[in-house]
Amino acid sequence: MKDKFYKYIQQLQDTITSKLEEIDCKAKFQEDLWQRPEGGGGRTRVIQNGNVFEKGGVNISAVHGILPKSMQSYFNVGEVDFFACGLSLVLHPINPFVPTVHANWRYFEMYDKKGKIIDSWFGGGQDLTPYYLFEEDVKHFHQVCKMACDKHNPNFYEEYKKKCDDYFYNSHRGEARGVGGLFFDYCKATEDFSMQQWYDFVTEVGNSFLEAYVSIVERRKSIEYSQENKDWQEIRRGRYVEFNLVHDKGTLFGLKTNGRIESILMSLPPHVQWVYDHHPEKGSEEEKLLEVLKNPEDWI
Amino acid sequence: MKDKFYKYIQQLQDTITSKLEEIDCKAKFQEDLWQRPEGGGGRTRVIQNGNVFEKGGVNISAVHGILPKSMQSYFNVGEVDFFACGLSLVLHPINPFVPTVHANWRYFEMYDKKGKIIDSWFGGGQDLTPYYLFEEDVKHFHQVCKMACDKHNPNFYEEYKKKCDDYFYNSHRGEARGVGGLFFDYCKATEDFSMQQWYDFVTEVGNSFLEAYVSIVERRKSIEYSQENKDWQEIRRGRYVEFNLVHDKGTLFGLKTNGRIESILMSLPPHVQWVYDHHPEKGSEEEKLLEVLKNPEDWI
Repeated sequence: MKDKFYKYIQQLQDTITSKLEEIDCKAKFQEDLWQRPEGGGGRTRVIQNGNVFEKGGVNISAVHGILPKSMQSYFNVGEVDFFACGLSLVLHPINPFVPTVHANWRYFEMYDKKGKIIDSWFGGGQDLTPYYLFEEDVKHFHQVCKMACDKHNPNFYEEYKKKCDDYFYNSHRGEARGVGGLFFDYCKATEDFSMQQWYDFVTEVGNSFLEAYVSIVERRKSIEYSQENKDWQEIRRGRYVEFNLVHDKGTLFGLKTNGRIESILMSLPPHVQWVYDHHPEKGSEEEKLLEVLKNPEDWI
Repeated sequence: MKDKFYKYIQQLQDTITSKLEEIDCKAKFQEDLWQRPEGGGGRTRVIQNGNVFEKGGVNISAVHGILPKSMQSYFNVGEVDFFACGLSLVLHPINPFVPTVHANWRYFEMYDKKGKIIDSWFGGGQDLTPYYLFEEDVKHFHQVCKMACDKHNPNFYEEYKKKCDDYFYNSHRGEARGVGGLFFDYCKATEDFSMQQWYDFVTEVGNSFLEAYVSIVERRKSIEYSQENKDWQEIRRGRYVEFNLVHDKGTLFGLKTNGRIESILMSLPPHVQWVYDHHPEKGSEEEKLLEVLKNPEDWI
């Protein structure tokens, strides 16, 4: 399973980065191969200063070795071996009317002393962070998520949509990071649902990513915008930074276990503003977005 | 003691904000009074878009009530009453040759059910975060810190300088946030050193702040700078954000215990950049700063 899934994310990285370069028409992904001293490594691909994408990364990694101490206590296990691989992407477009998007699909194994798998699971999801609300875009994104889910289980969309709203939440602000999508974790084999079935589900979601996002980019990338629109985007990106550095388990885990910093923090936006006590004008488009972030909606 | 110290920080806030307005010659501090639902409140003063200061805050607060749950476990005590007051300031100047500065002086009391003080201590410090290294400035800042310390105990400067280097450290980057200064905490009465003596020491440091910082501002605020200098300042401010949101106990404590978000996060810089895998040129002024941040020096 680990070889099959790693091969899948390698191919998916190629598919996604070549499509994004085609859309951008200017910038190319810069590739960095890196090794993890304790075992494994990754292939980081970053795009900067494009026509469409201000900054973004589409990274894969496969790491293994002794489970780091902090994860041993997190999973409540002793000193065991592990393997983890995944694809992580974040795209920050230039145009404030094009939403930021994040996605991640990952697979994890733990082994006993004899090398036998004692636990394994999939996790991941994809979610959208707009700066201006186009209901049509949000509905499209969720519709694609739901279609991918429905092929595998009629309850998945509702369950993982809610998990996404709950997870990507800036509790200190009382608002969601964005308009959600899917989030799932610890997807393990049961009597009713095998690892192969989880693999089919997770790759279905991975394959749906470009369909979910690309048409939104195409629709919004050429809308004219003002400095005020750009300022609002940069202020909202401050909230994105707050979530990733204060609440996101993946980021904090990476920072505290000697991960490759530049690959972990490629998720941070290129330009960010913090303005003291900023509030959008009553009745403005900016306020309309905030309302939805404070009260997550059902989009379907 | 609590009334005496709170009166002191009220006056110190006035002294500092009026001096800073005089230096800025343009922007005035905006004052916000706020109440904490569980008891107490504060007086936040923020300056933005000045001639000299791009963004800064000089805040005081005095809060009381039942010790929040997360602090009960942090201090390993049961449900006790507490009082805490302090002054916190962060100044982000426009000119990249003027360093950012941070300072904080605080006092804490805990009570038993009868209202008797069961524990009390002072804490605080002041530290400098330059974007370009002027040894003269760093030496001056540390010299003023040392003079304030030496009047009270010959070991304080060395001890609290080291604590500052250890605390304001971005462990995930392997570099200090800035060039340090003083950091002290849990300063409690002993046989040799009474609370009154701690009060005298902490207020001595508080009184030294303007002397430590203002002459640096005056010397550097009018140096001409390029867009490259400004970009470097904004990239380094990204590291400032990383420290405050990932490592700073005070910020995280505030965010997780329903503090006033805008007062806590006034410390975040106005404009910030994250550039993937940025490295300054060999032999540049930018690299010179990094060397010092990776290997904290003795400045005196």
